[in-house]
Amino acid sequence: MRGLLRLGPIGELDVSQWIGEPPAPTMADLQGRVVAIEAFQMLCPGCVSHGLPQAIRLHKTFGSDLVVIGLHTVFEHHHVTGPKALQAFMYEYRIPFPVAIDRPQERGIPATMERLSLQGTPTLLLVDKTGQLRLNAFGQVEDLPLGAAVAHLLDEQV
Amino acid sequence: MRGLLRLGPIGELDVSQWIGEPPAPTMADLQGRVVAIEAFQMLCPGCVSHGLPQAIRLHKTFGSDLVVIGLHTVFEHHHVTGPKALQAFMYEYRIPFPVAIDRPQERGIPATMERLSLQGTPTLLLVDKTGQLRLNAFGQVEDLPLGAAVAHLLDEQV
Amino acid sequence: MRGLLRLGPIGELDVSQWIGEPPAPTMADLQGRVVAIEAFQMLCPGCVSHGLPQAIRLHKTFGSDLVVIGLHTVFEHHHVTGPKALQAFMYEYRIPFPVAIDRPQERGIPATMERLSLQGTPTLLLVDKTGQLRLNAFGQVEDLPLGAAVAHLLDEQV
Amino acid sequence: MRGLLRLGPIGELDVSQWIGEPPAPTMADLQGRVVAIEAFQMLCPGCVSHGLPQAIRLHKTFGSDLVVIGLHTVFEHHHVTGPKALQAFMYEYRIPFPVAIDRPQERGIPATMERLSLQGTPTLLLVDKTGQLRLNAFGQVEDLPLGAAVAHLLDEQV
Repeated sequence: MRGLLRLGPIGELDVSQWIGEPPAPTMADLQGRVVAIEAFQMLCPGCVSHGLPQAIRLHKTFGSDLVVIGLHTVFEHHHVTGPKALQAFMYEYRIPFPVAIDRPQERGIPATMERLSLQGTPTLLLVDKTGQLRLNAFGQVEDLPLGAAVAHLLDEQV
Repeated sequence: MRGLLRLGPIGELDVSQWIGEPPAPTMADLQGRVVAIEAFQMLCPGCVSHGLPQAIRLHKTFGSDLVVIGLHTVFEHHHVTGPKALQAFMYEYRIPFPVAIDRPQERGIPATMERLSLQGTPTLLLVDKTGQLRLNAFGQVEDLPLGAAVAHLLDEQV
Repeated sequence: MRGLLRLGPIGELDVSQWIGEPPAPTMADLQGRVVAIEAFQMLCPGCVSHGLPQAIRLHKTFGSDLVVIGLHTVFEHHHVTGPKALQAFMYEYRIPFPVAIDRPQERGIPATMERLSLQGTPTLLLVDKTGQLRLNAFGQVEDLPLGAAVAHLLDEQV
Repeated sequence: MRGLLRLGPIGELDVSQWIGEPPAPTMADLQGRVVAIEAFQMLCPGCVSHGLPQAIRLHKTFGSDLVVIGLHTVFEHHHVTGPKALQAFMYEYRIPFPVAIDRPQERGIPATMERLSLQGTPTLLLVDKTGQLRLNAFGQVEDLPLGAAVAHLLDEQV
């Protein structure tokens, strides 16, 4: 994962609500930081078995060097995966980072998911210190190349 | 797991609704059959990672020799784990057996969970051909002794 | 795995040596007992990662109800997998059951492996109380059906 | 694993023989390259289940950016883990990188293992572009911090 392409500026996440601590960051606030965003749905088996445990490992491994954020991109089962359901899910699965709820839209695909053309869940996004999207990976990413990718972004001089 | 004790008659499951196929059996209907009941909650991590996958393996391994049933024993997060949420969960996790919703009660512990003194979720129950409860196991059961326990119950002459 | 076919009498294992405790049993001595035989090679990756750990689980799960035996069926790398190498291997991998060394033959395939037409390693054999071979499974067997198969053999009346 | 300490120059590996391709490198030859050295014994269960599979993942993940080398540090069972046994082991386990045999010494601990004070097997060593030892980790290392550590070393300017 060396030489990660620049995929364009991430822009602001268009979200309806944040759950968890610390309080909602804007991407502008996070300039100068490397950010990992785990896009998931609480009833998506691959998110529960792979994506979220990996995001928790990222959070533990990189500590304050890396900002880890969840993004609840609901495009199925909207009626049973609202904020209260998400809150119960986060409690049970001990999610240690804040989660943004992607803004619902009439057609079913939420706003940020649509704007960034996410292919499904889980999707892992990496954002560099200048706010550029550098990884947009749908499905399973292995830990070894992921650890390397985050480290390369941390090492980049702005 | 040889010589499984007789823990008393299972009695009828007191449930408010069934989800999934085939149509709701009564325990009386199931006399003469060996039955495995997986008691779970849809937001319980140990149920999702261990209990339900094992129940699905039971269903596939023993085919028509064994009746596998889920029992949704909600004692936490009632407001977000109702029938519609459970239906979405069962769809996403491809649960191939019918699930009964344990009858809610005012105090929070549902009716069947209380009557059978289940300690939590996941709990695996095995019922013999005469309707006797023979296993009431909270937490993780290993596949090798579980396969043996089911086989011993199948081999019992009534 | 119900209704396991009778594949013929196992006969005596033709072996050159036994390693480990308790002392070498003959199949005649084991009449009336259910026996699991794990055929393996110490340098076979599938044996080390799957077959032998499962045989150790069989030994722990069924205790004195089941006789578990290893059979070192060397058909490759004979020069570096002799008795002393096997002994070191058994020590490092904490093999808790005795292992018979299948009698080497000039052509490379050892005597018992040839007579029983084993397809490779790992192979798991199950022998019933009358000395009949009831399972001859090359490759991976899952724990749930295996536990059931052993239990059915234990339940058979002679 | 940021800010990996400098643990001193690795020096040359004192080895009696190399097995596998490409031909034996000296550490002097490898100046300017990042090097991972997996110290193992062929009959060490933790090496077979964890250390070597991780070294193979390192080799696949980092390709030509990283030099991966095995070091067979035999301190037990010398009589059955000589060069021919190691060769058979490497063939069966598909080890895709060259392995050096640490020079045997009379007392049992081989030369390089003693000089670098390795605590046991498996041990993973990382060497930076200037030949400094930067990681000397006995036991299990997780993939995420390891990927990061390698990337940081690759990013260092000499």
